[in-house]
Amino acid sequence: MSKQIITISREFGSGGRSVGKRVAELLDVPYYDKKLVEQVAVETGFDEKFIEQEGEYASPWQSLMSYAFPGGARLRHPVNSGLSTADFLWVIQCRVILDLAEKGPCVIVGRCADYILRDREDVLNVFIHAPIPYRADRVVRLYGESDLSPEKRLEEKDKRRRAYYKHYANRDWGMSQNYHLSLDSSLVGVERCAQLILDVARNPGQ
Amino acid sequence: MSKQIITISREFGSGGRSVGKRVAELLDVPYYDKKLVEQVAVETGFDEKFIEQEGEYASPWQSLMSYAFPGGARLRHPVNSGLSTADFLWVIQCRVILDLAEKGPCVIVGRCADYILRDREDVLNVFIHAPIPYRADRVVRLYGESDLSPEKRLEEKDKRRRAYYKHYANRDWGMSQNYHLSLDSSLVGVERCAQLILDVARNPGQ
Repeated sequence: MSKQIITISREFGSGGRSVGKRVAELLDVPYYDKKLVEQVAVETGFDEKFIEQEGEYASPWQSLMSYAFPGGARLRHPVNSGLSTADFLWVIQCRVILDLAEKGPCVIVGRCADYILRDREDVLNVFIHAPIPYRADRVVRLYGESDLSPEKRLEEKDKRRRAYYKHYANRDWGMSQNYHLSLDSSLVGVERCAQLILDVARNPGQ
Repeated sequence: MSKQIITISREFGSGGRSVGKRVAELLDVPYYDKKLVEQVAVETGFDEKFIEQEGEYASPWQSLMSYAFPGGARLRHPVNSGLSTADFLWVIQCRVILDLAEKGPCVIVGRCADYILRDREDVLNVFIHAPIPYRADRVVRLYGESDLSPEKRLEEKDKRRRAYYKHYANRDWGMSQNYHLSLDSSLVGVERCAQLILDVARNPGQ
């Protein structure tokens, strides 16, 4: 069975988004990352920026905090079911991703899509990573300098992604067995990553 | 810099050895797994079967036991430096693998070669894995039935490999970041795994 849905998980600065965009272009299918966020935002009435922050970078600590201090955000839930803000967003995000996969072939970057779509057989899960010096250099080149050193920025972002994945998927982020392909983009290169994904998606199996 | 040395780590029954053999054949370079064991056996004077068992499947528990009850095996060490049998074998194994890499291009399957050669820049590290049903079927087909169910055999072997790697490399076995390529052989197939490894080894980078 060919793989219609490609999910791409990635270390910060590894070029996973570029790989995802290129795959979507080659397959001529929709590409979702921020678009997905926008869609969630529309459904929930939350501020888009807020969702982007909570949806991917929320740590279990933040989640815990939002349990302790549900504050104003909870009041804005269209359906207040007693969930924390982070958990509420997770539920919405799951629904959006399941709906997108149902609609047809696409590429989804981040958002635990590999886990959310685990029961489908037409999904190819990819993890893109790279050594720290390569990513640090790339982050500065693409996003510019900031108060934090690039290494510290990588560490912070990866730590949050790992914690988020562990919290909601109860899996270890980056463990090979969770993905069909895990590729070091510094060695494989964006174009070759994309071509390989395309080839395996179209012709899976021996 | 092209990659001269290919290390292949693998889940039991995933076909990692077949991939390694095919890569060695395509590159026309030596392939080591049992050969490596034989070489260690020659150097230490240990029985080959015993080394195969201790060298890859020793758990930290076994290692601990051999500290507690060094017994007869220690008497057979050509150099008795107070190391446990497992640790002694580890030291010899490291030396053999470092020597092999120094000699020239080759493919090394298992034996923590990725970790042992971590300071070399001409090494491509690969992890081959596959879902349990695929591996269970393959194990029965290749090695026949045994008293244990194939699933139990996979679990046992993988558990020992994981513990051994954790004990000696202090790393999580199968974590994507330790390898340049992690491939699900049930989806990518032995031949495509080999061709990809060949391509990346010859032309690493963007």
